[in-house]
Amino acid sequence: MIIIGELINASRKAIKAAIEAQDTAAIQQVAKDQAEAGADYIDVNAGVFVGKEPEYLKWLVETVQAVVDKPCAIDSPDPAAVEAALSVHQGTPMINSISLEKERYERLMPIVAGTDMKVIALCMSDKGMPRTVDDRMKIADELVGGLLKNNVKIENIFVDPLVQPISVENNFGVEFINAIERIVAAYPGIHTACGLSNISYGLPARKFLNQTFMTMAIAKGLDGAIINPLDQRMMSNIIAAEALAGKDNFCMNYLKAYRAGLFDS
Amino acid sequence: MIIIGELINASRKAIKAAIEAQDTAAIQQVAKDQAEAGADYIDVNAGVFVGKEPEYLKWLVETVQAVVDKPCAIDSPDPAAVEAALSVHQGTPMINSISLEKERYERLMPIVAGTDMKVIALCMSDKGMPRTVDDRMKIADELVGGLLKNNVKIENIFVDPLVQPISVENNFGVEFINAIERIVAAYPGIHTACGLSNISYGLPARKFLNQTFMTMAIAKGLDGAIINPLDQRMMSNIIAAEALAGKDNFCMNYLKAYRAGLFDS
Repeated sequence: MIIIGELINASRKAIKAAIEAQDTAAIQQVAKDQAEAGADYIDVNAGVFVGKEPEYLKWLVETVQAVVDKPCAIDSPDPAAVEAALSVHQGTPMINSISLEKERYERLMPIVAGTDMKVIALCMSDKGMPRTVDDRMKIADELVGGLLKNNVKIENIFVDPLVQPISVENNFGVEFINAIERIVAAYPGIHTACGLSNISYGLPARKFLNQTFMTMAIAKGLDGAIINPLDQRMMSNIIAAEALAGKDNFCMNYLKAYRAGLFDS
Repeated sequence: MIIIGELINASRKAIKAAIEAQDTAAIQQVAKDQAEAGADYIDVNAGVFVGKEPEYLKWLVETVQAVVDKPCAIDSPDPAAVEAALSVHQGTPMINSISLEKERYERLMPIVAGTDMKVIALCMSDKGMPRTVDDRMKIADELVGGLLKNNVKIENIFVDPLVQPISVENNFGVEFINAIERIVAAYPGIHTACGLSNISYGLPARKFLNQTFMTMAIAKGLDGAIINPLDQRMMSNIIAAEALAGKDNFCMNYLKAYRAGLFDS
């Protein structure tokens, strides 16, 4: 499972304040905590700062990579901000995210075309949010096709079928996990990823629902997740689900996590 | 989800002692606890008592049904024991279980043929335990075909693909859940069920693994489970997973469980 640590996002109050104050230590602590907890990528997002996003995103990448040996997931639809972040990034970053929305697609495709960058391909178009598996497959087909045509390798693409709340429509969870399964079957070698907290919008015990939904998505083939790696129960669920899904040789990772006390809570 | 409460099983020390002592109150307490916790069927098993199984199984059915308004899952391969239990059973019981093992098949088929009883069809044959999805589908095809030919309705059949430990082979979990998915797709209207604690054999934190595996199986279509309904985390996982799988209209069952404090632990 590729874990993208989601915490360094300016839509969170503490992070917004730390960015404004250029509080290097605060950002670096969150980066280190996530890396230690198992994040493979550190997401950086400064989207709330209109006009200053390129400057701040670049600063976030430098600040994070000064203390952790991990690539960033550069979380912006703005090509200027992405380019600024890329100018200082070390290693191979992830772009979070391209979609089929015309403006976003046209502005980000030239940046990822022909590169080795990882890219999240969000199943969203100008026609609005997808509802069914078929809606998602239609967008995925165009999006993946476009990326391949632009010389992005299949193994660098992470399709995000876009989670929608089951409180809005009971079937939204099923449509999402069935889309994961269809995508994995349709494009051998591709990856999937998602932030799944929207699934529980409008319901109580949201964390528990999110954690449970993660294991269900893994059963259907999900192999990437944009999450809070400090959520111990979420990480436990991922590790257990991967062992149960046959993705943990000799259950070594599971046994290691057990010995480290991860399942005690 | 059809819940089959597994606790009244003579392979458990306390139950064996209660049966030997004909301790009505002890058995009835376990029956009531399971029914209150959400069991739809109360499994009764007296398999360790060679020679006395028919007498004891009959007593268990009478004892259980004197206090709970639930049918039993009559858990025996012995036709004499099953017949004894059926002679006193009220309502429509479940037979746990027929399989493709020749002796078991030939002795139990006449009992379920042409009836409205529910029957668990275990994917096991005289050739040993199934390993792959295909092994399971081959057995399921013969077993379901045989039951249909003997006028058992498709909606009364619960196929159990037979869980095997991931500690023995990493892929055993995937093969099992993929079999669930194939069975549900192959026989519209059929049910699936299983006792899944074998999945975690040989590993630590077994309860947690079992609970996690349950949500993954539900993602693939499992709709019956032989479990301990007093395991609160297991029940929470089932209720959350069913809501996430679109099987809980307006999430009413989830909300009810939340208000009852089921997700607090």
